[in-house]
Amino acid sequence: MIEIKDLVNALTKLPGIGKKSATRLSYFIIKNKQIGFELSKVINEVTSGIRFCSVCGNYTTNEICSICEDITRDSTILCIVEEPNDLAAIEETGFFKGQYHILMGNINPLEGRTPESLKINELIKRVDKGDFNEVLIATNPTIEGEATFLYLSNLLGKYNLKKSRIATGIPMGGSLEYSDTFTLGKALQSKLYI
Amino acid sequence: MIEIKDLVNALTKLPGIGKKSATRLSYFIIKNKQIGFELSKVINEVTSGIRFCSVCGNYTTNEICSICEDITRDSTILCIVEEPNDLAAIEETGFFKGQYHILMGNINPLEGRTPESLKINELIKRVDKGDFNEVLIATNPTIEGEATFLYLSNLLGKYNLKKSRIATGIPMGGSLEYSDTFTLGKALQSKLYI
Repeated sequence: MIEIKDLVNALTKLPGIGKKSATRLSYFIIKNKQIGFELSKVINEVTSGIRFCSVCGNYTTNEICSICEDITRDSTILCIVEEPNDLAAIEETGFFKGQYHILMGNINPLEGRTPESLKINELIKRVDKGDFNEVLIATNPTIEGEATFLYLSNLLGKYNLKKSRIATGIPMGGSLEYSDTFTLGKALQSKLYI
Repeated sequence: MIEIKDLVNALTKLPGIGKKSATRLSYFIIKNKQIGFELSKVINEVTSGIRFCSVCGNYTTNEICSICEDITRDSTILCIVEEPNDLAAIEETGFFKGQYHILMGNINPLEGRTPESLKINELIKRVDKGDFNEVLIATNPTIEGEATFLYLSNLLGKYNLKKSRIATGIPMGGSLEYSDTFTLGKALQSKLYI
């Protein structure tokens, strides 16, 4: 027989949800059954319906995702990201209106994530077609992301393309005083003339 | 066609989950489909299977909840709480091994929550049977909880029963300096001789 604690246990498997939050959520769901049913249905449909866009590798419920299908977007600039979450974060800003390519990870030889494990062949095929004028590399400013960036910038060196990467520096609302020296150093190296 | 943003929207309806957390959870669920399917199933089963225990009013999937059915528990002491969540919090401590009665709310005339809207008739019926030696009132130390406590202690006055309530005071790990005066005052009034 199913019990509330089964729901609590299932919820604690989600990231950032401990036993206390899971209990609170469980009682909320039980009290608001309509929300519970809806949620159960959506989770089930999304997990069964989702697959990878055959062009960019983003999550989609169709063959091709809504971004790749959108003919109003700039088709001459390609933004390379590690994960679909990164794409979602960039889309949220509204500052990029081009195409995407998702690597599905980053390079980390220690954990067995070599360039071959990433969607780099697919990337090269897209770049080879010659539709893009510019490639914007938006890997994370972490050790793995930097390694991936270096690998890609090397690999793309032979193409006659503008190459760019997103800026690292002091975050908006942050302060110089409390920035770590590494970030502050990067911000100084990337100074912009005004 | 269902999309990830439908899952994000469904998750933001849960308490304490904003758009950012919901997005993170959605991508986690998509990446870990097994956890997603499991969660969907459990939410659905719990929301459809849950009802109120006919004895104490706790959530259960049976006619009578597992606490009321447990014959190893003390049947002479009854703990009265506002909500099933309160019962769960008390059970978590392991310091109470008696019976429970859930009022399903508290008294708040301004919001139309009168004593008649609570499970007080059911409480009186249980107390009338004469099985209990002691009643422990564990309403929250809020204005509504205090009002409910006063109403109940009045109502139970005529019974030849030990009556008790849970202590209010400085929380464990708290400090006198940063306690509000009301809590500190309560702690002084409830001083224990050692």
